[in-house]
Formats: sequence, C-alpha cells, structure tokens
Amino acid sequence: MSFGAAVAGLTAPDATAAAEAAALHDRLAKPRGALGRLETVGVRLAAIAGVCPPPVPAPVVVAVFAGDHGVLAEGVTPWPQEVTAQMVAAFCDGGAAVNVLARHAGAAVIVVDVGVATDLPSAPGLLLRKVRPGTANLAAGPAMTVDEARQALDVGASVAAHAVVGGARCLVTGDMGIGNTTASAALIAALTGRSAAEVTGRGTGIDDPTWQRKVSVVERALARSVSGPLEVLASVGGLEIAALAGFIIGGASARVPVVVDGVVALAGLMVAAALAPACVDFCVAGHRSTEPGATVALEHLGMDPLLDLGMRLGEGTGALLAVPLVQAASKVLREMATLDGAGVTGKG
Amino acid sequence: MSFGAAVAGLTAPDATAAAEAAALHDRLAKPRGALGRLETVGVRLAAIAGVCPPPVPAPVVVAVFAGDHGVLAEGVTPWPQEVTAQMVAAFCDGGAAVNVLARHAGAAVIVVDVGVATDLPSAPGLLLRKVRPGTANLAAGPAMTVDEARQALDVGASVAAHAVVGGARCLVTGDMGIGNTTASAALIAALTGRSAAEVTGRGTGIDDPTWQRKVSVVERALARSVSGPLEVLASVGGLEIAALAGFIIGGASARVPVVVDGVVALAGLMVAAALAPACVDFCVAGHRSTEPGATVALEHLGMDPLLDLGMRLGEGTGALLAVPLVQAASKVLREMATLDGAGVTGKG
Repeated sequence: MSFGAAVAGLTAPDATAAAEAAALHDRLAKPRGALGRLETVGVRLAAIAGVCPPPVPAPVVVAVFAGDHGVLAEGVTPWPQEVTAQMVAAFCDGGAAVNVLARHAGAAVIVVDVGVATDLPSAPGLLLRKVRPGTANLAAGPAMTVDEARQALDVGASVAAHAVVGGARCLVTGDMGIGNTTASAALIAALTGRSAAEVTGRGTGIDDPTWQRKVSVVERALARSVSGPLEVLASVGGLEIAALAGFIIGGASARVPVVVDGVVALAGLMVAAALAPACVDFCVAGHRSTEPGATVALEHLGMDPLLDLGMRLGEGTGALLAVPLVQAASKVLREMATLDGAGVTGKG
Repeated sequence: MSFGAAVAGLTAPDATAAAEAAALHDRLAKPRGALGRLETVGVRLAAIAGVCPPPVPAPVVVAVFAGDHGVLAEGVTPWPQEVTAQMVAAFCDGGAAVNVLARHAGAAVIVVDVGVATDLPSAPGLLLRKVRPGTANLAAGPAMTVDEARQALDVGASVAAHAVVGGARCLVTGDMGIGNTTASAALIAALTGRSAAEVTGRGTGIDDPTWQRKVSVVERALARSVSGPLEVLASVGGLEIAALAGFIIGGASARVPVVVDGVVALAGLMVAAALAPACVDFCVAGHRSTEPGATVALEHLGMDPLLDLGMRLGEGTGALLAVPLVQAASKVLREMATLDGAGVTGKG
C-alpha cells in the first residue's frame, strides 16, 4: 500500500464504541475511575477497533526502520556511522535490546533498511527497502528530495499494511540511525516552533561542546525557509523518520493501535500528524524518553505516555515495555466482572 | 515460618553481584545508562539473588490479604463493610481486577482472610487465617492488641515462606479491606511525622465532607501517644496491613524480590522497614497510587515507583502491571549481546 492510499483510507475512531467502553468501566467491580490510565487506554482501544470490549492487541509487530544521516559530518555524536549497520546486524542476530524486549512482549521484529549508508547483506527478518544510502548533511542543505521523502513514507505505509495482512493487531515503532536525534530535534522544532536549544538533547550521551555543536547544527537547518510538512521532512528529516511517519499512518489506516517509542518515533508522529491529523487517535505514547524533544512533541500532540523510566535507547525499546499495559487495558474490559455480576453491594 | 524467624533470617543484599550487574550494563550493546530505570532494577535483582545476571523473577505469586476495619463506624467511606467479603468471593471466582491482571502477568493469586468481619466459606485459593473478625475502631482506641498484630505478621511471613517453598521467585503484595486507606493514612502519618491532612486521600472516591471526617478520624487516632513500630501498628493499623508487613519481610528473608503495590502495601512496607530496615532493599515499588499517603511513604522510603498511571484500586493491581518491567530488567542482563560480542564499534 502506498502512503497516499493509507491517508485516503484513514477514518475517524469510533465514538460509539468509546462511549460503550467508558460506560462499561463504570459498571465493573471497582470504584469508578480506579484503574486510571488503564481505563483511558481501554476506551481508546475500543474506539480504534470499533467494538466494545476491544480485542486484545496481539499479535504484535515491532518494525525497526534504519537509516544513516549525512549530518554526522558536523560531529554531532561520537559514535561512527558504521554502528547503524552493525546494529542492524545485531537486530538480525537477535541480541540487541529491541530483540530481548520484543521476545518478552511476544512481538515479532521486522528490520527495514530504508537508508543505511552501506549495502547490507540479506538476512532473515531484514527488508531491503533502501531509498538512498543515507541522507545528505541537513546542516548544509536539504536532507533529501521531496520525492525521496515520499518514497520513504511509502516504505513505512507498506510495511504496516503487510504486517496487518500478516495478522498483526498491534504495531510498535522502532528506529536505528546514528545521528537521528539531531534530525528528530530539527523536525520537532520546525513543526512546533520551539527553539533548537529547547528540543536538542544528548542522544547517546554527548558532552557539552558536542551538544552546543548539535544545537547550532539544528539552528542552521531551521534557518532554511521551508513550508509544508512534506517539504520540512525532506529538508531536515531522516529516511527512517519518514518511514516511521508512513508506518504510523499505515497502521491507523488499518485501524490497528500503534504504540509509539521515543523522540525519533515522535518526530515521525509529528510529521504523520501534520500530514494526516486523524492518525494520532490510533496511537498510544509508549514512554517519555529523556530527550527534551520527546516531551515537546508529546505536549504538542496532547499525549501522556504510559511509562517514564529515564530511557533514551530508541530501537522501539520503550514502546515494547508499554505493550503489556496496552494489552492489560483490553483485558480489563473483556474479562472483569461487573459489580452486579460479582454480587457486590454498591455504595451506601 | 514465624515473623520473628523471618526477621532473624534477613541478610543484606549482595553488593558484589550488584557491582557485576552495573559493570555488565556498561558493556552491553547500547550507550551507557540508555535503559534508565531498567538498569537500576536489574542491579537490584542481582543484589537480591546474589548472582549476575539475576534469574528471571518467576513464577510470580500475588497474595491478597483481606481484613475489615472497625473505623467504618465513623463514616469514612460510602462502601458498606460486606463489600470486603464480597470482593474476596470475586477474587476466588477469578473476575476481579487482580485476577485479570494476575493472569496477564502469569501470576498465581492467593487470597488470605486475615481479618474479614464475617466467617467465609472455604474456597480454592483462599487461606483462612483470621486473627480476629475485623479491627476495633481506631478512632476510639487501639485497632488491635500487640499480640494480634504479631499474629497477623506471622500470617504474612508464613504465606511468603510457603509461596517460596512452592516455587515462587517473585512476590506481589495485594490487599482488600473497606476502610483500609484510613488505617494506611494513620500508619504513614505516625511513622513519618506528617500531618493527617497530608497523608489522607479519597480512597474509593469520597466527597469533601467525608474526606474532612476521615482526616479528623486520623487525627484522633494519632493523638494517642504510642511508641515502637509494633505498638503503632496495633494502635492505628489493620490486620491485612500487618500481614503485608510480615509478607514483605518473609519475601526479603527468602531473598525473593517483592513488588509493592499502592498506599495500603506501602503502609505495610513502612511498618516492615521500621521493624527490619534491610527488607526495603528486596522491594521494588510497582506504582504510584493517587493516594497522597503513597507519595509520602515512597519519599520517606527513598523509592521511585516504576509506574504512575493514576491508579487507586489496590488489590495488587498496580504492582502486577509492573511485573513485566521487573522481569524485563533481568532479561536485559541475561540475553543482550555486549558491544564486543555484537561487533559494534565503540565511540570515536
């Protein structure tokens, strides 16, 4: 499925099913509202599925989109570019954090090369969908062309559609790309109007001079006047971020909940929300990354993440940890007795 | 096992295993510290088990201790006392929130009558260990005798020891007792020196006049001068809270991690910490309940909970939701590749 078809297929979540879920919560064997966020997530799942109680969001697929970033030429991180490809190999070998947490959550891992700088050997679970071998340096000029951004959006939408055709009923965003917190910061700043210093973080853990350099790189990228979300994406984004935006819209178009990870995924969601606002209602924010851009994006999107564990790894790790919570929200609606059914006396 | 034997068996967590886990985290295929709280929990699990990497905390047992409260005579809640026994029946039938979330976490549920006001019929999974049929009204005088408090501590310690003998390697605290947020508030105030108004919450959801009444009840209870944690427990506590304190110390004594739920469990942990301080290092705070006493207790104990989902149900529900996170912390240490092993180039 192309990105355009996914956008065209987007419909609003089901308000009737949402209202039914809220009413059901009030009849369950507990004080009203006592399950807090688990109740609001349950209402959202009913709205997404269009039925109350909502189905348990499973099987789960986490798609890890990988791409490289020309902005590494500016010295924004101490990690060399080849680490992107090395981590893709680790994802295929099953030993990275995303693999461990995916197994724990019962999720299948799909790795997608949408823009790694080097040619990758084929491997089980690896989709070769390279749009170009890394972006151009976004500090010096556009990261990619608008056409390339559109191709990367198509890759993401297509991966989501295939996962759902294959049976997935819960999608999780994952990412890998040395340098991608710089592109994410630039995108979030461009789409929220916040300053480079407010959205730029320490990524994998950089020192003060490197952080200053990263802020000035984001400032230079933002200085180019660009209008329209697709154009902003092409100017200061990344290939894996574009693919994530397409993946989110693809999941929403298929009416499957999308659990969103940290700052890179949120940059993708910001783009997706700008291109197709209805997709946000099909997402659940998995966690709050320590990257400041994540909190700026969450506020802008009006989302309250399920977890806040001081994490900043990416790969989809924070979102995968939230998956059992999302599934629990469905099971509460499906399996709990009502006050009447349990023979519990109401309040005096 | 008696409570006294559990206290005598308590040893310090293993600092060497903790140091090994911290060092292993720094070699795994990720930036240092990037998994945030998952790393600190992993270090704690290694310290508890005395080995690195630590075993996965499973099988899991949640023990739901149930008791009634004479303080209901003061009108601190609109829910009638018989709801405690009705909810115990619901736990045995498998339809309560704790059952749903226990199944989701792969946990077995044990229900323990340590002080329900009425005689309960025997049921599968229900342990009849009643110390007395509900406490006395703590606003008017001591809730129980010191000897009864000690008996309830014994019940909790014995349940923990039996669960571990039966194979449990992760214990979860659960509670049921209409009125028990009043006793919890009084205990937390007494053991932290905070005022009644600071620790008293709205429990199942009470209105302003009821809250005012609840605060003044806690104030009257605190006005009795009592010294010593066991004496405070007997004066203003509850039978299920005493049992929870014994359960926590029993788990710690068996060197098994104890995932602690909301305000009632934290009141039990405050008592346990006063009686046997070393037990705190064997606990993980599962979540932050919306009850203000929970936050006061967490601060006093120096604990940062894993979840903050606006929940206030009790039963062990918040702690059960944290169990997959605790297990993930172990799996990261057990299953992740190292940077060297994954062939990942270090920072330039």
